[in-house]
Amino acid sequence: MTVLTCAVALKLVEAILAEGRARGFAPLTAAVLDAGGHVVALARDDGSSLLRPQIATGKAWGVLGMGFGGRELAQRAAKMPAFFTAAIELADGKLVPVPGGVLIRDSQGHIVGAIGVTGDTSDNDEICAVAALAAIGGPLGLKPDTGV
Amino acid sequence: MTVLTCAVALKLVEAILAEGRARGFAPLTAAVLDAGGHVVALARDDGSSLLRPQIATGKAWGVLGMGFGGRELAQRAAKMPAFFTAAIELADGKLVPVPGGVLIRDSQGHIVGAIGVTGDTSDNDEICAVAALAAIGGPLGLKPDTGV
Amino acid sequence: MTVLTCAVALKLVEAILAEGRARGFAPLTAAVLDAGGHVVALARDDGSSLLRPQIATGKAWGVLGMGFGGRELAQRAAKMPAFFTAAIELADGKLVPVPGGVLIRDSQGHIVGAIGVTGDTSDNDEICAVAALAAIGGPLGLKPDTGV
Amino acid sequence: MTVLTCAVALKLVEAILAEGRARGFAPLTAAVLDAGGHVVALARDDGSSLLRPQIATGKAWGVLGMGFGGRELAQRAAKMPAFFTAAIELADGKLVPVPGGVLIRDSQGHIVGAIGVTGDTSDNDEICAVAALAAIGGPLGLKPDTGV
Repeated sequence: MTVLTCAVALKLVEAILAEGRARGFAPLTAAVLDAGGHVVALARDDGSSLLRPQIATGKAWGVLGMGFGGRELAQRAAKMPAFFTAAIELADGKLVPVPGGVLIRDSQGHIVGAIGVTGDTSDNDEICAVAALAAIGGPLGLKPDTGV
Repeated sequence: MTVLTCAVALKLVEAILAEGRARGFAPLTAAVLDAGGHVVALARDDGSSLLRPQIATGKAWGVLGMGFGGRELAQRAAKMPAFFTAAIELADGKLVPVPGGVLIRDSQGHIVGAIGVTGDTSDNDEICAVAALAAIGGPLGLKPDTGV
Repeated sequence: MTVLTCAVALKLVEAILAEGRARGFAPLTAAVLDAGGHVVALARDDGSSLLRPQIATGKAWGVLGMGFGGRELAQRAAKMPAFFTAAIELADGKLVPVPGGVLIRDSQGHIVGAIGVTGDTSDNDEICAVAALAAIGGPLGLKPDTGV
Repeated sequence: MTVLTCAVALKLVEAILAEGRARGFAPLTAAVLDAGGHVVALARDDGSSLLRPQIATGKAWGVLGMGFGGRELAQRAAKMPAFFTAAIELADGKLVPVPGGVLIRDSQGHIVGAIGVTGDTSDNDEICAVAALAAIGGPLGLKPDTGV
């Protein structure tokens, strides 16, 4: 039985946006997807720009599509540009290979979903995803996989 | 100054899903868009099927795209099928002309956003959108426009 | 733990094609998708035409996207043409609302995937999906949901 | 008369996945396409990530689309990035220019189809394609063309 319910996903996106506000980051957008790559919860904070929902979703979908966290995807994209040009096209753009895309793993290491955050720098986006997952998902046995 | 903040939008989607559960409806998905047609908050309840995020978004986008509530859109689509086939294509599908797409108007009648709900019958979807908007948006002066 | 492994999915597509051959049907194409709508196994029999992989996938994806079997989708599409025009566009065509799209449910009724079959009449396509699922999935507690 | 029947294609994808498991590789996805570039058989092993079916298909389609094995495509992509950016776009992404895309040639050297494998490193993906084609296709006079 998955622990990544809609209630948990909503708490995650709220915690991500709150983390960004507390740190004085630019307004964030956060998406939580299930293991099949489908959105469970999404929130775009006041002032977060128009394409952010698609970017957040694309960061999360990309890590699920390839099976690696966003940090690993970024390294691979730098080494294999032609492969990623094709993969991004195959994914209809829903593969944004930068930090801020984070796999959610359960206590056994199985992928149960993914988080995508965008709005500030990729590193700061990731900080908020990891912090929110620790706070909300930690007690449920969920762990982030950023691709490091 | 809009009152349709991210915080309000998140409360709306949560209230819509809760309304559906309280009424024993099939699992719902709800989206809240701003006046520019961009998602502010979205939630897909446990067991709500895969295409529901796109349908909820399409119901909300469609009422903004045409400027009428979903009930009015449904009547027009029945009378003018070729027009709507073209309009749906122009909108890349983000125009779902059935009840459950509800314009959000402020106290002066200006459109400030839209709600899209899907999962149960279109009539039941609309009931949840209207109930949640009354509870959450009423105190802020927000009113539903279902197209009746 | 899902019972819809790759090994099971491959047996299903082989059994579907064999069923079609045994019944003298036109050459079939069969796809098995997981609960997230992603292909696990697909086979196109000798002589099955070019678009069949997409149609088989679209039948299976459509029942997962909407949460109903293909027979129910066909009835709804007849009653709500504008809704389905939009939904098909939203699904990028991966929603083929006719029999031959069959949900796979486990012993508790949870959706664990879907089958899509095409090549002969929709009714005959469905016959092969149901027969194969009974033979291969029955011992695993899997049951077809055709939407009747 | 082609020897690349659906039965042979299914044996190929099964042998590819088995080869990957035997070697302890990451979970693979394999696709076999006919000379017209249309999928005959595809299998995604347990744990192989979401975009793998498109990548496997894109590796196989790409070698058919350009007429060279994946290893040759990778070299050309490194030398001519702008050409490949355009070609990938023209192919709607179905041109993944890395090893693991393998042309299938008959005893006279004619192209009868292609294999695409993805999941582990591109080199390891190719090893499995070549091994399976030797085992299954060898007795039928089929030979791999990896682009070396």
